[in-house]
Amino acid sequence: MKINGKDYQALWQEGHIVQFIDQRKLPYSLEIYSARTVDDIVYAIKEMVVRGAPAIGAAAAYGMALGQNDPEKTATLLRATRPTAYDLFHAIEYMIQKIDLEENAFDAAASYAKTIITRCKKIGENGEKLITDSMRILTHCNAGALATIDYGTALAPLRFAHQNRKKIFVYADETRPRFQGLLTAWELYHEGILYALIADNAAGYYMRKKDIDLVIVGADRIAKNGDFANKIGTYEKAVIAKENDIPFYVAAPASTFDPNIRDGSHIIIEERARQEMTEIAGKSIMPDWITVKNPAFDITPQKYVTGYITESGISKK
Amino acid sequence: MKINGKDYQALWQEGHIVQFIDQRKLPYSLEIYSARTVDDIVYAIKEMVVRGAPAIGAAAAYGMALGQNDPEKTATLLRATRPTAYDLFHAIEYMIQKIDLEENAFDAAASYAKTIITRCKKIGENGEKLITDSMRILTHCNAGALATIDYGTALAPLRFAHQNRKKIFVYADETRPRFQGLLTAWELYHEGILYALIADNAAGYYMRKKDIDLVIVGADRIAKNGDFANKIGTYEKAVIAKENDIPFYVAAPASTFDPNIRDGSHIIIEERARQEMTEIAGKSIMPDWITVKNPAFDITPQKYVTGYITESGISKK
Repeated sequence: MKINGKDYQALWQEGHIVQFIDQRKLPYSLEIYSARTVDDIVYAIKEMVVRGAPAIGAAAAYGMALGQNDPEKTATLLRATRPTAYDLFHAIEYMIQKIDLEENAFDAAASYAKTIITRCKKIGENGEKLITDSMRILTHCNAGALATIDYGTALAPLRFAHQNRKKIFVYADETRPRFQGLLTAWELYHEGILYALIADNAAGYYMRKKDIDLVIVGADRIAKNGDFANKIGTYEKAVIAKENDIPFYVAAPASTFDPNIRDGSHIIIEERARQEMTEIAGKSIMPDWITVKNPAFDITPQKYVTGYITESGISKK
Repeated sequence: MKINGKDYQALWQEGHIVQFIDQRKLPYSLEIYSARTVDDIVYAIKEMVVRGAPAIGAAAAYGMALGQNDPEKTATLLRATRPTAYDLFHAIEYMIQKIDLEENAFDAAASYAKTIITRCKKIGENGEKLITDSMRILTHCNAGALATIDYGTALAPLRFAHQNRKKIFVYADETRPRFQGLLTAWELYHEGILYALIADNAAGYYMRKKDIDLVIVGADRIAKNGDFANKIGTYEKAVIAKENDIPFYVAAPASTFDPNIRDGSHIIIEERARQEMTEIAGKSIMPDWITVKNPAFDITPQKYVTGYITESGISKK
């Protein structure tokens, strides 16, 4: 991704240090978080220095490389960071095999990361075919380069459409409680793509007005039958899209498909801390006596999905 | 409504002064805004010292009393405050007639306010019949006592159910961008009703899980065919409720029905300032370069509504 004309990735390797764009500081400032130990990686995943299923997977792969002397313990620590994203578990298993085979663990992690980037690029090229000139596209959360090392999943087709000079306009849900829509806005702004950030409540309003032609979202885990977990609110957008006959696509690399999970009812939903609701950037926005509930993901049944954009093409379950 | 054991209304008259609970200061502190002139009332409505269609109507009625020497000019100023709420126009017309008939304008405004309170009480009594023990109820925005002088519309049935010792649990959408869900939480907290504030995105998650048995919302304006305008996001909740076979009720006094509007397509939607998205309590939460869109209301078609709770009973269009 381009930021102020320079190429960046959500994370990259410098020797035995893993560098991250610190996503907690975005969209205000571009700061780098350096991970030198497994604990640094665990912290980065848990505290959302890095977020988005594919980027978390790559972070975990590098975490396994940093903790290659005790792969079992490292895997246990990394698995406990976030329960919903399948890529995390996929990356850990991949690295356990490579370490077992005595391959160079850092090379293996780098190759894992490179594979993700290549897949996202292909997702972009495949998804771009769905986009025609003047389309208005809704996205939820941030399934951008920040979430996937580079290009993004849901945002990759938009990047390619823009590069191919298709005029597009993006509605970006702000995505409460964590406002990941600001990350999407930050990426689109730097890419020169026209957009507006909207309250999550407003997506339905624009869909009903036929101001939105296409919805593309990412996914954290996709079950065998096509049901998928993604950021809380995705389910609502999918239902409203179907109600208004607007195509709804899920963009995700094949690694997000979990063949061991039959349907969405078997995907674990993470409840996250109350502070995500009651604070913004460490500052309280709600009184202490407020009672909140904060589920981080929801399940969207396959019947609401028009198609899945993967590195292999566009498929319908 | 009870606050710390004392009875309050959203607004009340003291001589020729109209006192308001300053809703901009809630839920942090209870402060009183005193309106002595038409301009004070115009400010209170525009800046949302007072909000909610019925309370805005009462404020406008008192505004007409304060500006009774030039009813036409006063009416013009008041009509320009907020375009969506029908009660505002209804109250102004009512007062113009009373002033024409040379009735005491303050008495007429007080009687207008009292009528609203009585209607809300009846809405509460009527709607309470829909609520059975252990029900979990979703509401959006604040259609509480703060919005209607006392009792509320959507919240009135919950108050009566609680008073009649039915155990209920309320899911309160936080209602971005203005977080009116905090006002709902504040009212429920003071009333001793169990609740949780949730991100607007999470309502669908709980509906799909069957953790919500009933949805009750207020309305700003109801067209002849039953389509209604309410806070942005209401449409999404209505569609998701129908998709999950959850009854969806609109609670509103008869004065919210606008016989001059055939259907929802004729209701004007107010776009409000970008600051509502980018600031909380005057503090910026988003960078300056962010582009936003901020529609304040949406239209929910009648087909998603199970019934309308009014002072006369429960009806289906």
